[in-house]
Amino acid sequence: MSSRAGILITGTEVLTGIISDRNGPWLSERLREIGVDAAQIQIVGDRPDDLLAALEFMASQELSLIVTSGGLGPTADDLTAEIVGRFAGREMVLDPELEERIAEILRPMMKRWPGLDLEAIRASNRKQAVIPEGATVLEPVGTAPGLVVPPASGSGPTVVVLPGPPREMQPMWETARATDAFRAAIAGATTYRRGIVRLFGIPESEIANTLRAAEAEGLQLETLEITTCLRRGEIEIATRYEPPAQDDYDGLIAFIVQRHADTLFSQDGSTIDEQVAALLAGHTIAVAESCTGGMLAARLTDRGGSSAYFAGGVVAYSNEAKVALVRVDPDLIARFGAVSTEVAEALAVGAIERFAAGIGVGITGIAGPGGGTEEKPVGLVCFSVATSEGEKITRSVRLPGDRADIRDRATTVSMHLLRRLLRGEAKLPLPGPNDARGSAAAPPGSAGAEADAARS
Amino acid sequence: MSSRAGILITGTEVLTGIISDRNGPWLSERLREIGVDAAQIQIVGDRPDDLLAALEFMASQELSLIVTSGGLGPTADDLTAEIVGRFAGREMVLDPELEERIAEILRPMMKRWPGLDLEAIRASNRKQAVIPEGATVLEPVGTAPGLVVPPASGSGPTVVVLPGPPREMQPMWETARATDAFRAAIAGATTYRRGIVRLFGIPESEIANTLRAAEAEGLQLETLEITTCLRRGEIEIATRYEPPAQDDYDGLIAFIVQRHADTLFSQDGSTIDEQVAALLAGHTIAVAESCTGGMLAARLTDRGGSSAYFAGGVVAYSNEAKVALVRVDPDLIARFGAVSTEVAEALAVGAIERFAAGIGVGITGIAGPGGGTEEKPVGLVCFSVATSEGEKITRSVRLPGDRADIRDRATTVSMHLLRRLLRGEAKLPLPGPNDARGSAAAPPGSAGAEADAARS
Repeated sequence: MSSRAGILITGTEVLTGIISDRNGPWLSERLREIGVDAAQIQIVGDRPDDLLAALEFMASQELSLIVTSGGLGPTADDLTAEIVGRFAGREMVLDPELEERIAEILRPMMKRWPGLDLEAIRASNRKQAVIPEGATVLEPVGTAPGLVVPPASGSGPTVVVLPGPPREMQPMWETARATDAFRAAIAGATTYRRGIVRLFGIPESEIANTLRAAEAEGLQLETLEITTCLRRGEIEIATRYEPPAQDDYDGLIAFIVQRHADTLFSQDGSTIDEQVAALLAGHTIAVAESCTGGMLAARLTDRGGSSAYFAGGVVAYSNEAKVALVRVDPDLIARFGAVSTEVAEALAVGAIERFAAGIGVGITGIAGPGGGTEEKPVGLVCFSVATSEGEKITRSVRLPGDRADIRDRATTVSMHLLRRLLRGEAKLPLPGPNDARGSAAAPPGSAGAEADAARS
Repeated sequence: MSSRAGILITGTEVLTGIISDRNGPWLSERLREIGVDAAQIQIVGDRPDDLLAALEFMASQELSLIVTSGGLGPTADDLTAEIVGRFAGREMVLDPELEERIAEILRPMMKRWPGLDLEAIRASNRKQAVIPEGATVLEPVGTAPGLVVPPASGSGPTVVVLPGPPREMQPMWETARATDAFRAAIAGATTYRRGIVRLFGIPESEIANTLRAAEAEGLQLETLEITTCLRRGEIEIATRYEPPAQDDYDGLIAFIVQRHADTLFSQDGSTIDEQVAALLAGHTIAVAESCTGGMLAARLTDRGGSSAYFAGGVVAYSNEAKVALVRVDPDLIARFGAVSTEVAEALAVGAIERFAAGIGVGITGIAGPGGGTEEKPVGLVCFSVATSEGEKITRSVRLPGDRADIRDRATTVSMHLLRRLLRGEAKLPLPGPNDARGSAAAPPGSAGAEADAARS
């Protein structure tokens, strides 16, 4: 049996776009892991009628589970528990022990803010202890308890009620999963397997062609649920299948490997960030960035433990900084311009020297919106990755999109160049189209432009 | 009349959490600007039944407009146009002129990828020219046309069909708005006004108290639709109201100003980033970051034109880099530890000197997950902002959350300290709770911890 679930995100601040929802995608991934399909994610404001209509629509779609997030706070517009109680046909009752436990949580917090109106806070939080009768309480991570609410009538979806802040919601999800009421709701769900492969430097339409070709050659694909998407300039092929379809999946992957060996960089679902982090073990790296303004350094230090290999970085935004901090030869800037492969190489070498690192990255480009010329348009970014032994890869790439896209995509290109360098593939030709400026082996980044244009 | 709309985001890759949706919040904001409430955002996969059920549910909620995004691509799982046609009661017909225009767009792209199967691409894109009869075509920005599809029967919502990639969707939204079919669908929508104020260094529960106090003092709040939320450690109060309620809004803002003058930093909706960028005009700034790993430099260079004031930055992750690149006195590190207010000050001063800047920022802290001790726990971050004339603000703050939260929040604290310095408020006491380490005026950042805990 395939069990389907609905995810209901509440909160006017999410609906109106003031904050973006991270919980819907997170819950969707967690549900998939336990064999439950998210049939829909719905975002509604803090309006009782809209909330109830969304729950009833989900029930009409024969979903076995609904997970809600948000609307458990102390203010009057937080009304998820009450509406879910009404939906499930359950009375709202005060749980006095829960009330006391919430008061315990608030006590130290109130001490640290001596100016607060204690009674008002206590009153508004008492509301959080009023819950649907017969619901399973999930202990608060912040101050809000969660709930698992089965239908009073015995038929209809079970509702898991979780708080909105991700750091409260995520641990509480684990608690919810362990409850009997949750297990009963998803009893009999199929366990799926999931595989992800990733490619870089190829347009999405080529993958569509490959899938058509695979079918034409007689590969069995109907048992596979295949999703392809562009993500930060890379193509991700995610496939879900039931265990008996393992051979079909293996056949598909073999077919992709054969056709796209040059652009396929991950067969095991690992990301480029994970791969580069693993490849950097035992090395040290330093960066000198211009247009990315620190984003590559930030990306390289995203992971705990990165201090083992990350020596440091310079954001050399001005020419003076390039010269003074990274010791780029000012003549080079005068002759070739700040945005040039020559300066990118000097930045990479300078980073190595200044931080006494084994590997250096130099990035210089035009992120826009201003500063572009006909010869050096907005989106032109020059990269160099080098080792202290003199191995290097240097590329000039025209990246698509706006300033934020160009800066982000430039970090992705850097990561892929780093991977090639660290794998000793500096001398292999790079995949991708012939670029407009006539070099034979074109940069991987420019593929992003095509892939974006092909996708709708 | 208040016109309500539904936003329907399609795509299995969004539903399954592979990519996160940016279009729903964006469309919601654009709708609000023209006086149309988003009643719901719904995300569904590429399944015809789910798509149609979502459209019909939205119609049952008496929405006057539905905006869809995604599912217009060339592959077989892109079926939005067809399902919307069925929903609106309109036949699907090939538009041969549109087909030719799409072919024109593809031609140069195909030239750049000489290895592609031209006929296969052409065939799969022909599909994009099959549209519901009587729909208004929105010209492709990438290769996919959009549509405005009124109901064939004359009653029911008009559907605006837009592509998924934000850089295609956003310009096409403007085109859609200008069509007669769109205008007819939202005729008579109320024009709302919207005001946003922002505070930093105060828990969200205090704002709830202030709203209660305002009502208790007789302020008219029923005419105002007030949403409060936490966003990157700041509190945002967004209010929407019809023009006659302007006095009520002004009264509320005056009340907030009176109670929260010390933490209210924006009355005009401007963000801290905008304010700091404006305050930096005529100055130059340099940063020396440790735990934020380049994120503050990236944030300061987020905006086009930031090269006018951003001199550069150093990511001094290792102690060696702090000494060699920023010339921090190694004795200081030995005596106080790398994470200390003393080293933060040395980083700020070092940044000023190395980049010959007028303003410097130093950040050093423990982002975790490892590296914390009892005395210096994960989340402890030391900040210093200074001018070349010797004015400075230095703070040590305990930030909540995981590594990503701590790093992000640390950039927000830096921005607020910069604002105070640039406004000549270095000597004012900072708002917020007494911090655990006993200083009288506690750091603004620690408020984020309380505010987060209070929110559910």
